[in-house]
Amino acid sequence: MTDIRPHEIRVPVPNPDDARLYFIGRIHTPWTDRKDCPRQGKPDGPECRVEIFEPWVPALKGIEDYERIELLYWLDRARRDLVVQNPGHSDSTFGTFALRSPVRPNPIGTSLVTLVAVDGPILTVRGLDCLDGTALVDVKPDRCAFTPKAPPKP
Amino acid sequence: MTDIRPHEIRVPVPNPDDARLYFIGRIHTPWTDRKDCPRQGKPDGPECRVEIFEPWVPALKGIEDYERIELLYWLDRARRDLVVQNPGHSDSTFGTFALRSPVRPNPIGTSLVTLVAVDGPILTVRGLDCLDGTALVDVKPDRCAFTPKAPPKP
Repeated sequence: MTDIRPHEIRVPVPNPDDARLYFIGRIHTPWTDRKDCPRQGKPDGPECRVEIFEPWVPALKGIEDYERIELLYWLDRARRDLVVQNPGHSDSTFGTFALRSPVRPNPIGTSLVTLVAVDGPILTVRGLDCLDGTALVDVKPDRCAFTPKAPPKP
Repeated sequence: MTDIRPHEIRVPVPNPDDARLYFIGRIHTPWTDRKDCPRQGKPDGPECRVEIFEPWVPALKGIEDYERIELLYWLDRARRDLVVQNPGHSDSTFGTFALRSPVRPNPIGTSLVTLVAVDGPILTVRGLDCLDGTALVDVKPDRCAFTPKAPPKP
């Protein structure tokens, strides 16, 4: 994930410091090597465990009402300075923003997953695609599921 | 966005520094006050402009092929230390991860928007919900639109 392929374009970038994140938990999946990860999670993929760290565990209150949730996670092994990539090792290149590659200025992955179970600080989900040990950044209800339940705006 | 309502629960948190972000652009919308923002963007919402900053502009190569894109942005006015919230000003409280509120440990908003036009560093989109001037964190093709085009994994 750190090599450069033919026709890829790297740009000089400063150290990032426009905003800072908390890692709020950790994702446990069956995949320990990047080449084994699915390109994208599938609804019938294997069950994965999402562990929420303190002090954020109380923020799960009510999450069990949702069948679909959105997860944001930090793809820490990806380089951040490529603007054009060559994912197929071919002559076809794509801009980073036209790809869902982990290689991007801010390596945040997003997945919509099925929530199978909630047990204290542990969510069991299906539909992930990331490496075992990936740091969790956010959990939200899926838009479609959330909208009908959203309280009216005061 | 910085007040605490009845029954909300705040937790002591350290300064965040597990990962750091670049702001890669800026979003221009018609909404300059939080109370005017839609709770969630709509496909027939007003056209908004998304400005990409250098050196990231070349990363847009090929984005025009997608009708739907995902945007991630930084909701910088939101406090980050609430685990239980009271969005309806009522007796019903919700955990932060059971809400799509901007108030969350990592205040990253995500929207799926319709890409109307691309003109150099400017994307015109419909379906946003955020304040004018919001900082952009990422642009990705929508999952559904991307999958059929994704090059095979080497």
